Amino acid sequence: MTTSPTSPTVARLIEALHRLPGIGPKTAQRLTYHMVRMPIEEARSLSEAILAIKTSISFCSSCQNITETDPCPLCSDPRRDRSQLCVVEEPLDILPLERSGKFSGLYHVLHGVISPMNGIGPEELKIRELMERLKDGQVKEVIMGINPNLEGDATCMYINGLISPLGITVTRLARGLPAGGDLEYVDDLTLARALEGRQPV
Amino acid sequence: MTTSPTSPTVARLIEALHRLPGIGPKTAQRLTYHMVRMPIEEARSLSEAILAIKTSISFCSSCQNITETDPCPLCSDPRRDRSQLCVVEEPLDILPLERSGKFSGLYHVLHGVISPMNGIGPEELKIRELMERLKDGQVKEVIMGINPNLEGDATCMYINGLISPLGITVTRLARGLPAGGDLEYVDDLTLARALEGRQPV
Repeated sequence: MTTSPTSPTVARLIEALHRLPGIGPKTAQRLTYHMVRMPIEEARSLSEAILAIKTSISFCSSCQNITETDPCPLCSDPRRDRSQLCVVEEPLDILPLERSGKFSGLYHVLHGVISPMNGIGPEELKIRELMERLKDGQVKEVIMGINPNLEGDATCMYINGLISPLGITVTRLARGLPAGGDLEYVDDLTLARALEGRQPV
Repeated sequence: MTTSPTSPTVARLIEALHRLPGIGPKTAQRLTYHMVRMPIEEARSLSEAILAIKTSISFCSSCQNITETDPCPLCSDPRRDRSQLCVVEEPLDILPLERSGKFSGLYHVLHGVISPMNGIGPEELKIRELMERLKDGQVKEVIMGINPNLEGDATCMYINGLISPLGITVTRLARGLPAGGDLEYVDDLTLARALEGRQPV
């Protein structure tokens, strides 16, 4: 049989969804058939939201976070502590830090980490913009809120090498046991870090 | 801190994606941030594909499959065997049956199975349309290509009760060991079905 069981319109949407990260061919099919039966207003709203994200979103010229206004709401909030700067990898990383309620400074989004394997060097990241922000001497502490893995560690070391000479304190998030974790199931490296970083009770 | 770290446009897209089946809040966030960095042409193409699916797709008046033309390519293909009708639950179920290359008849999509728990009775399915198609006497065999589970079985029984009196053969897909399966790991019910349905070598 050579008749295709799927129409070109359906095939096009499956293909477009499949191109998104984490969406396999099966999920793309399921989503497509869901959209066929979705109310037209809902489909229109999704379709418009996707376009809107490209047309009305830009990057904050100060912290490089994605925003609709420049500077972004966080950078223009007078209540934020301008002496602390938390450096993160991606805009998404700001959400959990904000939810923690423990940080009231400003952010700086690198948009990646140094990764020679993927051809990403310091020039590809927003490191120059970070150094620019530190020039006026307002920032007293830079907190590296970078993911604790090999590439994140290398990025921290590199940035620390640039900032330390300026007399600005560079700290990083503590490593140790996750809340609710269980010693029995914790991996060796995490336990080693938890021992190294032990604190008085 | 009361400043929201996400812009309304971003929040709107996360929300719209989160409403899709199988897309949790984390995946919706990841997809949204991916779309922020996606080339504008790709975003536009995805956005248009979603709208197109609502504006140019309808249901085939004969087999109830989703289609751009009515009747659909399968129903209007003169090479298909009009004496066999395979009844399936969803449009997606047609794809594996076509890939198998073993069926050259026509299909009928029920758009669901009887499920009293979810308030889906026979009237909610395309059973009336199925009975209408059987009236002209062309169809000699109805193959129930319905998923082998409780609700699927109930649906098969119900439809069999309607069709058998018309003198049309009703068959269902064989149950047994999956290709490449292993006796040791097969579940009891599948093994029981495989024994019941044993065939001469």
